[in-house]
Amino acid sequence: MTSKKLVNSVAGCADDALAGLVACNPNLHLLQGHRVALRSDLDSLKGRVALLSGGGSGHEPAHAGFIGKGMLTGVIAGAVFTSPAVGSILAAIRAVAQAGTGTDGAPPAAPAVGTLLIVKNYTGDRLNFGLAREQARAEGIPVEMVVIGDDSAFTVLKKAGRRGLCGTVLIHKVAGALAEAGVGLEEITNRVSVVAKAMGECRPGDREEDEEMAASLSEEASEALLPPGPMPRAQWSPVIHTSFLSGTLGVSLASCSVPGSKPTFELSADEVELGLGIHGEAGVHRIKMATADKIVAIMLDHMTNSSNVSHVPVQSGSSVVLMVNNLGGLSFLELGIIADAAVRSLEGRGVKIARALVGTFMSALEMPGISLTLLLVDEPLLKLIDADTTASAWPNMAKVSVTGRTRIRAAPTEPLEAPDSTATGGTKPRCTDSKQMVLVLERVCTTLLGLEEHLNALDRAAGDGDCGTTHSRAARAIQGWLKEGPPPASPAQLLSKLSLLLLEKMGGSSGALYGLFLTAAAQPLKAKTDLPAWSAAMDAGLEAMQKYGKAAPGDRTMLDSLWAAGQELQAWKSPGANLFQILTKAVKSAEAAAEATRNMEAGAGRASYISSGRLDQPDPGAVAAAAILRAILEALQGQGA
Amino acid sequence: MTSKKLVNSVAGCADDALAGLVACNPNLHLLQGHRVALRSDLDSLKGRVALLSGGGSGHEPAHAGFIGKGMLTGVIAGAVFTSPAVGSILAAIRAVAQAGTGTDGAPPAAPAVGTLLIVKNYTGDRLNFGLAREQARAEGIPVEMVVIGDDSAFTVLKKAGRRGLCGTVLIHKVAGALAEAGVGLEEITNRVSVVAKAMGECRPGDREEDEEMAASLSEEASEALLPPGPMPRAQWSPVIHTSFLSGTLGVSLASCSVPGSKPTFELSADEVELGLGIHGEAGVHRIKMATADKIVAIMLDHMTNSSNVSHVPVQSGSSVVLMVNNLGGLSFLELGIIADAAVRSLEGRGVKIARALVGTFMSALEMPGISLTLLLVDEPLLKLIDADTTASAWPNMAKVSVTGRTRIRAAPTEPLEAPDSTATGGTKPRCTDSKQMVLVLERVCTTLLGLEEHLNALDRAAGDGDCGTTHSRAARAIQGWLKEGPPPASPAQLLSKLSLLLLEKMGGSSGALYGLFLTAAAQPLKAKTDLPAWSAAMDAGLEAMQKYGKAAPGDRTMLDSLWAAGQELQAWKSPGANLFQILTKAVKSAEAAAEATRNMEAGAGRASYISSGRLDQPDPGAVAAAAILRAILEALQGQGA
Repeated sequence: MTSKKLVNSVAGCADDALAGLVACNPNLHLLQGHRVALRSDLDSLKGRVALLSGGGSGHEPAHAGFIGKGMLTGVIAGAVFTSPAVGSILAAIRAVAQAGTGTDGAPPAAPAVGTLLIVKNYTGDRLNFGLAREQARAEGIPVEMVVIGDDSAFTVLKKAGRRGLCGTVLIHKVAGALAEAGVGLEEITNRVSVVAKAMGECRPGDREEDEEMAASLSEEASEALLPPGPMPRAQWSPVIHTSFLSGTLGVSLASCSVPGSKPTFELSADEVELGLGIHGEAGVHRIKMATADKIVAIMLDHMTNSSNVSHVPVQSGSSVVLMVNNLGGLSFLELGIIADAAVRSLEGRGVKIARALVGTFMSALEMPGISLTLLLVDEPLLKLIDADTTASAWPNMAKVSVTGRTRIRAAPTEPLEAPDSTATGGTKPRCTDSKQMVLVLERVCTTLLGLEEHLNALDRAAGDGDCGTTHSRAARAIQGWLKEGPPPASPAQLLSKLSLLLLEKMGGSSGALYGLFLTAAAQPLKAKTDLPAWSAAMDAGLEAMQKYGKAAPGDRTMLDSLWAAGQELQAWKSPGANLFQILTKAVKSAEAAAEATRNMEAGAGRASYISSGRLDQPDPGAVAAAAILRAILEALQGQGA
Repeated sequence: MTSKKLVNSVAGCADDALAGLVACNPNLHLLQGHRVALRSDLDSLKGRVALLSGGGSGHEPAHAGFIGKGMLTGVIAGAVFTSPAVGSILAAIRAVAQAGTGTDGAPPAAPAVGTLLIVKNYTGDRLNFGLAREQARAEGIPVEMVVIGDDSAFTVLKKAGRRGLCGTVLIHKVAGALAEAGVGLEEITNRVSVVAKAMGECRPGDREEDEEMAASLSEEASEALLPPGPMPRAQWSPVIHTSFLSGTLGVSLASCSVPGSKPTFELSADEVELGLGIHGEAGVHRIKMATADKIVAIMLDHMTNSSNVSHVPVQSGSSVVLMVNNLGGLSFLELGIIADAAVRSLEGRGVKIARALVGTFMSALEMPGISLTLLLVDEPLLKLIDADTTASAWPNMAKVSVTGRTRIRAAPTEPLEAPDSTATGGTKPRCTDSKQMVLVLERVCTTLLGLEEHLNALDRAAGDGDCGTTHSRAARAIQGWLKEGPPPASPAQLLSKLSLLLLEKMGGSSGALYGLFLTAAAQPLKAKTDLPAWSAAMDAGLEAMQKYGKAAPGDRTMLDSLWAAGQELQAWKSPGANLFQILTKAVKSAEAAAEATRNMEAGAGRASYISSGRLDQPDPGAVAAAAILRAILEALQGQGA
């Protein structure tokens, strides 16, 4: 069985994906009759070097996502994981040349402008881009070609050289910044060749220069490494050296599958694949599943180990650009975890991370893995990485060093306890006696503890059967708190403290809702604590509970009881209102409302998932709230307030 | 068994991921002791409204990726798919206020600045952000809160309102642009409430206004929908209406799994899940697997169907921002295909797509699916979407309408056949007689056809056994081509035509390599066709073949024969050189080189994967190349040239 894919047809995948990218990016055009995307402002680029790249599809956003001012001029896409057609590459070269970046006649000895092909080191890409290049040159179009290899997987020399991986995106960036700055074709070709060479065939004897390389990068970057003409025959034999400025290594939890096909390799549950390419091929070896930290350490060790011929000579004191690339299907949560591990590991090695790019740059379809790329940089190279671009897939990146800055901000100071006019001086307000408050709270607690089994039983019919337990937990928390010392004398402060206590100790939605109620109710009591203020406190609490909890009266929740009581307590706002008379009415109204929930359909909370036919008991939250109100009434009456 | 994840510990996932994001983005700080990220330039934001958002982790890059100038001031992250702690939300509010965006005293009646909490509509988030808000207000910090719901999945009213999904990112953008422009807290609160309301509780009677909504957006956007104070009691009951400006719908091929847990739902191979949230929960229904076009059509139908209470009233003539969001684990190839389908489907409905954002914005861990978001926009709203931001996860987006522009560039013109001095006038050069060329080619073809079985047998020992077949295919293609008419008289043109023919008909790496050889070899023959020119042609062909094919002499490839011949043909460059004498030496040298490959280890090509001990036959490619050279020699000698 093949894997599920959101496609229209296997054959049309690459066309549709490129069409979608172009459709959504008004800065791009498709070239008629070819799987080619080009900058839509092509005709205004006269006099600048054009940069074309591409390769098989399946690596999105590479490469079309990197078309834009300051990056690529265009790309040629093949079928999934297949090199593009020579005819399409040639068409792209011609289109760009005809728009004015090339010349019509024979190329001058050292053409200032022309087209640079940036090609990932894979045989098919080398041959097809190479052939198109030769054909274009035969037509008199100046075209150069660089073959990019940044793979650090292979510890011994491979004749085919290093594969082109995510580091190619950095080449697009560097070359694009140079082209935008008006640098000529030959210089761009030479400078990017330094950054990500597939092979070390150009300078015999480079082997000894590794250490200097990292130190004297600017000189190196300004040197012409590739002679412009045909190479002298004596230099045709490849020279092995390891002076690479960039390296990439991938790791994955599983394979990917080409549309219409099965996954290309299988991994067991405790294995990860190390050193993979970007075409679903297996890696250089399989390692046991480990922590992110451990896997990142293994990767960085491998990439920077000088006995690995394809290593990057990154060492303590080196300055690098770090790319953390999602190979396609890894969660961005894990990508962040890997980025964190990579930064810590590199900085632990004394490496300075100048910039870090985290995202999906060069994918292998939906492969759930990542690659790490390291590029040794100096200031001039960093300026090119930092240069502006309109390419859609280049990230918004801060142009500031990652290493060497503070990453933590000190926690804010806790506010001082606000002065409370109701607790000090003035006429002693009603209901603010601390001893009385203690008696009220104690009555509420014993009431809730006595109801534990009853509330749990009610809750078993509609929820998870822990309503009584939750309220008992709250009651015991309050009892414990009261033992620690007298509660605040100010009602506002008392309710605020209770709010924090319930939030922390009661837990769940009930704790948050009572917390909300009490925090909001405390506010009107800051200025006054007379009966109108208590009525306003009830209003404020109900409003907050309803606002954030999204329940309304009639939804079969604790709000039903509280809201009914709140309606009656409006009467406290009238001059000369009687405390007990009105509170008694309110408690009765709350109890009636709690009983009435027996016939209600649940509109919020967990019970809303139960069909109403199965609910024939009152809501335990509403019963508890009514019981709390009665406990308050009885405690106050017992005090003869 | 739980799913494999690249993490350090299940408990530390959210902390590590946020730490990684902050480590790689120098514009961010972590708040000490809390899972909170804040802009590092917090202290320079005095006088502006601060925007805080957040929620459970697992939605990366949301929300921390959207912190930056022009977007969020900070975020508070919970554990995976879990609401953040009230204490951390309060700490973030305090930190921002203490940095100067809040005031220290009591809030004025209509504070110009302060903090806006942008909260996705989930119960836990509403309660925890709400409670932190109430506590902060109790401390005198001006804090408003908007609850965002953009879910278009539910066709009937849910008491809890619409879930907050990817559209929340657009709210971050709109609010961020307003804050950056210095707009006050109340106005920002009101304006973003219009854009993505979770519920329609504010204006009774809105139900009839759907049609006007899309038309009169600017007026709507400038209205204050939420009364600043407590709502009058009469309006507490929710009012149902459907005037939403934004809508989001998701679809997925499979579930995701929270670190340490199993996937949350199972889908069979021919099913996709429609209308999911972003916490791994199942969707509103399951549909049969279909093409991308069909699935997108079903989604857009559902989202815009006016009988769906949570629909977006998008219709012909509407102008929208389209978001195509990767839910996490879908390949970007498929994302592009979906984007293409969405653009075609919307434009087919007469909808104008003002902007399209394609990428990973609000994920659900590694869920292999997408969500589509539509936001109805007018020019003022579009300006806010277009405003600059430094947020790392906001894409580089062209500020140009997607709909209504040309997406295709005409193919380039084919170059005119270059005038060839060797084919017309002047002294008749050697070896350019068309009839002679035909005889040479015919001899090459019959030779290759005669060698088919021998070459295949040699290839079976080292490759896939088709070397003879490939060369025979080339021979028959040339024979067919010769029957169509006389070949070009000019050798340069002849080689160019042969190059294209082999590339197209021979296929594989051999076709590309011969194509390369012939294209490059043709160049020196454009000006002259004397013996030195033919020697130079051989050099050019060899150089191209070696350069793009990455093989060197000694690598056991066809290059061995050709290179040996090329060495002998250097003698043609000397004055008075003898054609046959030197060519005969070259052919013998080529044959010796082919024979010598018997003892070579393969350094390139398919045979390089075979250990040398198993290779005891000569390389078939080298044998074929030598045979071609002998055929040329014999044909020329037969002609007595």
